[in-house]
Amino acid sequence: MNQYEAWEGFESGTWVKEINVRSFIKHNYTPYDGDEAFLAGPTNATLTLWDQVLELSRQEREAGGVLDMDTKVISTIVSHAPGYLNKDLEQIVGFQTDKPFKRALMPYGGIRMAEKACKDNGYELDPQIKEFFSTHRKTHNAGVFDAYTPEMRACRSSHIITGLPDAYGRGRIIGDYRRVALYGVDRLIEDKIEQKETTRSAMYSEVIRIREELSEQIRALEDLKKMALTYGYDISVPARNTKEAIQWLYFGYLAAVKEQNGAAMSLGRTSTFLDIYSERDLKNGIFTEEELQEMIDHFIMKLRLIKFARTPEYNTLFSGDPQWVTESIGGVAIDGRHMVTKMSYRYLHTLENLGAAPEPNLTVLWSLRLPENFKRFCARISIETSSVQYENDDLMRFHHGDDYAIACCVSSMRIGKEMQFFGARANLAKCLLYAINGGIDEISGKQVGPEYRPITSEYLDYDEVMKRYDAMMQWLAGVYVNTLNIIHYMHDKYCYEKIQMALHDKHVTRWFATGIAGLSVVADSLSAIKYAKVKVIRNEAGLAVDYEVEGDFPKYGNDDDRVDSIAYDVVHLFMEHIRKNHTYRDSIPTTSILTITSNVVYGKATGATPDGRKRGEPFAPGANPMHRRDTHGAVASLASVAKMPFRDAQDGISNTFSIIPGALGKDDQIFAGDIEINFDCTTGACVSPTLFEGLDNQ
Amino acid sequence: MNQYEAWEGFESGTWVKEINVRSFIKHNYTPYDGDEAFLAGPTNATLTLWDQVLELSRQEREAGGVLDMDTKVISTIVSHAPGYLNKDLEQIVGFQTDKPFKRALMPYGGIRMAEKACKDNGYELDPQIKEFFSTHRKTHNAGVFDAYTPEMRACRSSHIITGLPDAYGRGRIIGDYRRVALYGVDRLIEDKIEQKETTRSAMYSEVIRIREELSEQIRALEDLKKMALTYGYDISVPARNTKEAIQWLYFGYLAAVKEQNGAAMSLGRTSTFLDIYSERDLKNGIFTEEELQEMIDHFIMKLRLIKFARTPEYNTLFSGDPQWVTESIGGVAIDGRHMVTKMSYRYLHTLENLGAAPEPNLTVLWSLRLPENFKRFCARISIETSSVQYENDDLMRFHHGDDYAIACCVSSMRIGKEMQFFGARANLAKCLLYAINGGIDEISGKQVGPEYRPITSEYLDYDEVMKRYDAMMQWLAGVYVNTLNIIHYMHDKYCYEKIQMALHDKHVTRWFATGIAGLSVVADSLSAIKYAKVKVIRNEAGLAVDYEVEGDFPKYGNDDDRVDSIAYDVVHLFMEHIRKNHTYRDSIPTTSILTITSNVVYGKATGATPDGRKRGEPFAPGANPMHRRDTHGAVASLASVAKMPFRDAQDGISNTFSIIPGALGKDDQIFAGDIEINFDCTTGACVSPTLFEGLDNQ
Repeated sequence: MNQYEAWEGFESGTWVKEINVRSFIKHNYTPYDGDEAFLAGPTNATLTLWDQVLELSRQEREAGGVLDMDTKVISTIVSHAPGYLNKDLEQIVGFQTDKPFKRALMPYGGIRMAEKACKDNGYELDPQIKEFFSTHRKTHNAGVFDAYTPEMRACRSSHIITGLPDAYGRGRIIGDYRRVALYGVDRLIEDKIEQKETTRSAMYSEVIRIREELSEQIRALEDLKKMALTYGYDISVPARNTKEAIQWLYFGYLAAVKEQNGAAMSLGRTSTFLDIYSERDLKNGIFTEEELQEMIDHFIMKLRLIKFARTPEYNTLFSGDPQWVTESIGGVAIDGRHMVTKMSYRYLHTLENLGAAPEPNLTVLWSLRLPENFKRFCARISIETSSVQYENDDLMRFHHGDDYAIACCVSSMRIGKEMQFFGARANLAKCLLYAINGGIDEISGKQVGPEYRPITSEYLDYDEVMKRYDAMMQWLAGVYVNTLNIIHYMHDKYCYEKIQMALHDKHVTRWFATGIAGLSVVADSLSAIKYAKVKVIRNEAGLAVDYEVEGDFPKYGNDDDRVDSIAYDVVHLFMEHIRKNHTYRDSIPTTSILTITSNVVYGKATGATPDGRKRGEPFAPGANPMHRRDTHGAVASLASVAKMPFRDAQDGISNTFSIIPGALGKDDQIFAGDIEINFDCTTGACVSPTLFEGLDNQ
Repeated sequence: MNQYEAWEGFESGTWVKEINVRSFIKHNYTPYDGDEAFLAGPTNATLTLWDQVLELSRQEREAGGVLDMDTKVISTIVSHAPGYLNKDLEQIVGFQTDKPFKRALMPYGGIRMAEKACKDNGYELDPQIKEFFSTHRKTHNAGVFDAYTPEMRACRSSHIITGLPDAYGRGRIIGDYRRVALYGVDRLIEDKIEQKETTRSAMYSEVIRIREELSEQIRALEDLKKMALTYGYDISVPARNTKEAIQWLYFGYLAAVKEQNGAAMSLGRTSTFLDIYSERDLKNGIFTEEELQEMIDHFIMKLRLIKFARTPEYNTLFSGDPQWVTESIGGVAIDGRHMVTKMSYRYLHTLENLGAAPEPNLTVLWSLRLPENFKRFCARISIETSSVQYENDDLMRFHHGDDYAIACCVSSMRIGKEMQFFGARANLAKCLLYAINGGIDEISGKQVGPEYRPITSEYLDYDEVMKRYDAMMQWLAGVYVNTLNIIHYMHDKYCYEKIQMALHDKHVTRWFATGIAGLSVVADSLSAIKYAKVKVIRNEAGLAVDYEVEGDFPKYGNDDDRVDSIAYDVVHLFMEHIRKNHTYRDSIPTTSILTITSNVVYGKATGATPDGRKRGEPFAPGANPMHRRDTHGAVASLASVAKMPFRDAQDGISNTFSIIPGALGKDDQIFAGDIEINFDCTTGACVSPTLFEGLDNQ
């Protein structure tokens, strides 16, 4: 029945007949209810390699942030000779270039960005490459700016739309890297050839496009094989054991990060998949627990060393140099079994063996039904390392089934079946100010939005403001979606994700991800207008530039429906306006209420708001209440966030939440020490290991 | 009223307010009814320069066909320093590269073709450029082959579809180069910016595409200015006199041939436009007739020196190294005035001053209403130089008005308002054989077409054959149109004609030009089946490979409606099938019955046909009757061709016709000597200076 020797011992299923990793997992994985006692510590090889990494990291910091950089070799899947830390010690091999800590040259997104990334780090881009990409080979960035309208440029300059992926890769696409291990590349190529043979036969432009893309994907898969061969591995055939499975899977991922430097290059949901191999190998005595942990430690070490050449501006926007190599762990299957395996433990255990690190972004898909042992293990690792992200599996499973993963921070998608057109954010707080000022930007004084009638009264009237705000949101949604249409058209045209899409099905669901910034500012502003009195302070040009709030008003973040329902309505209204627009490539519009750090930048670009927030003051991150306004305690604060309509913000709702152990009570066993636990509460309801299990998950 | 000093003395009109060269011509041109007595001979400078050209041509022939070739510099509008023959003597300047006879490197169409063009001429392409265009910068050819279906490849290999512009540029686009002279480039850029500002605002992919294209066009216009500046001319402003007008116009054309090496890079309809300048300059005593003729001689000399790097295969297909720099002369305005001017004479007179030459392809738009003097002049030049092409203006004017021109041999289009997606040919004779053999190719024995039921009877039955032929034509039309959809999608994507389209209106009508080969073979074959008895000779595999015709049958080319109506029906039927298919970019399907030389190649690839033609024997060119079968004289032969439905073959019907003066009678004054006159009779009716004026023009 099984097609390959490598599949010996696996239970058959649909996955044998078609590319279907979920079916393979479902038929073969072993849920683990035990505790962490089985885990092995780091091997000497692991410690030696990690010391080497720490030493290189130190050198990198000393060198000003970049240790080495390509300026002549353009990165492709096969552009570099193999690179090693220490070939003899590495269980899992592969670097983006021919040595660790050397950043690759990736000009497809934009030659000026590539040049600037070189220059700002003290390197000089090869002039011939610059000339070539300026004259003969257009980039994503150049394409986008060729199509932008003056209005879009104005919205971009005034930051009412912001963080757009027009000067960096959109990311947020997760290749199903597990396919490489399970099927070997030849079978994947066969599948792609069949997909190409079965496109529609009338050559409409979209049919021609998909045929060309499939050809690109096939070439990328061929390149993937070639790249692996340079490391001495023939991945045309399926992986035969855990080590090969990890290595094959990693080669798939490595090809992606050699080809793309997207804003989030996430890994997927690989631990339970790999556990099937390790359970078989343990059973057959192929590897010991120590050997398995060593492979995972080395794999995770590699993921920690994914690096891109970025500009300082990029690093400012994203507060550091994150790759969002997000790996989703745990969750519950739709048949009711939890999906925690020993391998889930091994992944998290790397935070102990190698020490804490923000990358890869280990994300637990949290469910009430996760096994108690695992919950406690996660809680402990969280406390000790502050490096675990939690997301609400109970909510997302309903939408995406049980083989989805998180791209970046909160974007959920079925692996290999869904992808996202990432769209950054619309600044809804600024939009409210445009509604008041008839489209004139409160900072620059320029007419950016449409010349709608401004509000001229001394005190703001809720109904009038809402009417104008609704109209202005409709305008903003239109410009925003159209801007994103251009970005994604051009990204596909000039910077197509060949290998990542090669590890997807033929028929891919595309999410058109918009985003909202400033939600709590808007909610509180509208609440102030409704429940208190807000006086407008105008400058000599008649422009509303400040507000005086007379009296108190309900504030978002206190579980008070009077204001929480305003926030709900704003999200819903904006999303309805988004939906009125054509979205590129039959993509399905969604939105997110998500900013982890960029809320500071957005606040800086926004004038004073009717909630009393002063010009330039930061917004709250994501769907968070405004700082210090959630006065009714943590649960009330989280309850407000939990009310936000997930159906209208399906790309995720984030709540960045800091808890000082003392504020939580006395459960010292779990919240020991005086560390802060930072975690993202996503997708409509916040999850924490112990506190919020009873919270309504909608 | 007039915006520019350069327009002093011109009559105003719509052309002042909008880009509208036709309006300028209509308001300002001076029809000339006189004879050629005013013409001036060549100047010493002209003779010196032409001697230099002849010497370089000799050297080029001796060097094996190519004198010099770029292998490192990729051709763009601004890629080269100025080139001269003899700067002091040249009235009109500009070469494609930095010196005459040096062929430019143009890899956008296909890197392998560019490489082969180098190699086959003894040059080696720069390996870095090869690597770049293989890895990072995709070409038109690479794109096309990524999207082709196996069926398309099979049709291409078996030559049932042939000559496809997938390995060479499609050409057939005429920029309105006159605009450069009349308006100066800055005004054209302004216009393009306005066009960009007024695209639709919802960013559907086609809107994004046109916005990007307009940006590319604007950059091309900027480059055009820069290129002219290197020659010392500021063409941002309108031309002030004849010399500048010619030079500006030529710079526009030069930019096009620096950017594109399409199969036909035609010039347009420039003589009467330029005449307006020369009439003004003569009136104001700015230039003498001799000076004007010298400018034109030098201009035409430049057009004769347009050269591209081609492969030997390309030259075989097109029998030589033609550029089809077609210039359309004469014709009649829709207000009834003929459009012959002194400048029309001067253009044709270059054939005397410089001697005969196939390029530029001087084409007279013939009308019954052309002035008698001009008709006689044309006849004389034709006889003396064999270098004039004639086309039926009375027919085309109805479809295209009075400011159209011919691209390549017969393709008519309004200048700056219409363009063509060129599509080479479907071999309808081979299609008939596929109908008989159920889709199996009669040469290779492979199943290329669909597995329809073959004809198995010993003798062919007309009704059965027609039924199966109709079905097979429907299949062929589908594959053919879809193949062309891919080609033009990829040409736009990877090899867009920036400067040519910059010299077009915003809203361009696109003709989707298909083509037919083997018409007379098909007509005669079906006639033989209907009116004689055709016995099928089958090989051991049961494949019909030869035919025995018993008895006589009417043959196409003798003004016999029995067979001419079959030809008519076949054209009409095929075109109806073509029209059933989606055509790229809202283009309007047309067809042509046109082959000048490639009919030999098509015949070679086609098995024996039921008309008695043996395997591999050439087809007749275009809509010509088969060689030696038009036994009823020239007029009858031409009458058959004239019956073909222009409405179904609007891209042109060609009849290559050789006349031995003796066969025409005794009018020695016109048909003197024993030369043969080769001319294309196009678009449904054949025109010759003296013979066929009475022919019904439909």
